[in-house]
Amino acid sequence: MKELQDRIRIDGQVIGTQTLKVDSFLNHQIDPAFIMRMGETLADKFTQDGVTKILTVESSGIAVAMAAGLKLGVPVVFAKKKPAVTQDSETYLADVFSFTRKEAVQISVAAKFLVKDDVILIIDDFLAHGEALNGMVSIVRQSGAKLAGAGIVIEKRFQEGGKKLRAAGIRIETLAAIEYMEPGTIRFAQN
Amino acid sequence: MKELQDRIRIDGQVIGTQTLKVDSFLNHQIDPAFIMRMGETLADKFTQDGVTKILTVESSGIAVAMAAGLKLGVPVVFAKKKPAVTQDSETYLADVFSFTRKEAVQISVAAKFLVKDDVILIIDDFLAHGEALNGMVSIVRQSGAKLAGAGIVIEKRFQEGGKKLRAAGIRIETLAAIEYMEPGTIRFAQN
Repeated sequence: MKELQDRIRIDGQVIGTQTLKVDSFLNHQIDPAFIMRMGETLADKFTQDGVTKILTVESSGIAVAMAAGLKLGVPVVFAKKKPAVTQDSETYLADVFSFTRKEAVQISVAAKFLVKDDVILIIDDFLAHGEALNGMVSIVRQSGAKLAGAGIVIEKRFQEGGKKLRAAGIRIETLAAIEYMEPGTIRFAQN
Repeated sequence: MKELQDRIRIDGQVIGTQTLKVDSFLNHQIDPAFIMRMGETLADKFTQDGVTKILTVESSGIAVAMAAGLKLGVPVVFAKKKPAVTQDSETYLADVFSFTRKEAVQISVAAKFLVKDDVILIIDDFLAHGEALNGMVSIVRQSGAKLAGAGIVIEKRFQEGGKKLRAAGIRIETLAAIEYMEPGTIRFAQN
C-alpha cells in the first residue's frame, strides 16, 4: 500500500535496525480515516473467504480490526492480555513472548466468542517475530474454527515470524513489508 | 440512546449490583456497525465545540473513540497503561485506581500528541467511579489544552464518578446512564 509506505517514510522513526516507531498514526495516536482505508484494504483481500469473525489482540490491533470488520460486516473479537475480573469459565489461552518488552503475557479469548463454525480472519498492526500471531493462531485452533488467514499492517520481514508461519501453511497478507531498515533507510519488499 | 439501552437489556449480564458485563458488543467482542453509530452519536454532541483531538485510554475505549474521531475528522490518541519500551522523553502521567481490579495503573501520553492549542474530547466506554476519566482530565490539564468534555458510552450513575466530575465543571455526555441494577432489573436515568 503506497500510502502506508509513504507514511512510514515520513512519520516512522527507525531506532537501530530492529525497532520502528509509528506512534503518530498507528499505535498511540491514530488517524481514523487512514486506519479505515488500511482496514478496508486488508478486508478486500479476504472478501472471497467466507469470513464470519475477525480476531485481534489488544490494543493496537483494535482500530484496524474494527475498520476491516465494518467492511466485511462481521464482529471483531479482541484477545485480552489480562484475564477479566469476571472471567468466563471456558477460555482459550495462549502464551505470547514479547521480544520488545522481553516478557511473556498470556492472551485469552472467551470460548463463547469463537465457535467451530466460524471462519476467522486475524488482524494485527505488526508482524515481527510472529509471537502474537502464533498465539492467535493457537486460539483459533483451540476453538475448532477455520482460519482464513492473517491481515497485517506492517511486517518486519527480516524478523522472520512471517516466514515461519507461512511455512506452516498460514496465509498472510500485509500492507507494507520491510526487508531492511536503519536510521535514514527503509527498504520495502515488493509484495 | 434507545438502541444501546435495548442492547444492554438483551445482551448485558448484571452481576450483583455493581458489575455490568457487556463483553458481547463493547469490550471483548465488538459489533463494528453499532460501535460506529455510538461513536457518531457521541461526536454529534460536540460538533459545535471546535474539537481538534480525541483522547481515550486503551483498550475498550479505542473502537468508539475511532468512530467519533472519524465523524469529527480529528486524530485519536489513546493513553497507554504500560510505558512504551521506546519511551518519549516528555510524557504526561496520571495514576488510575481500578475498583474492578483493585489495582493502580499509571496511564501515559507522549507530550507531543497533546498541545496547548488543542481542544480535547475524552471518549471512554464506561464511567463508574470516575478514576480513568479523572486521570485523562489530569493529562489534558498537564498539556495545557482545552477540555471540551467527555463522551461516555455507559455511565453507572450510582457509582458517582460522574457526579464528582460534573461538580468539578466537566461536561459529560452519556449514551446510557444506569441509576440502579440487579440481576433481572436495569433502571436507566432519563438523561
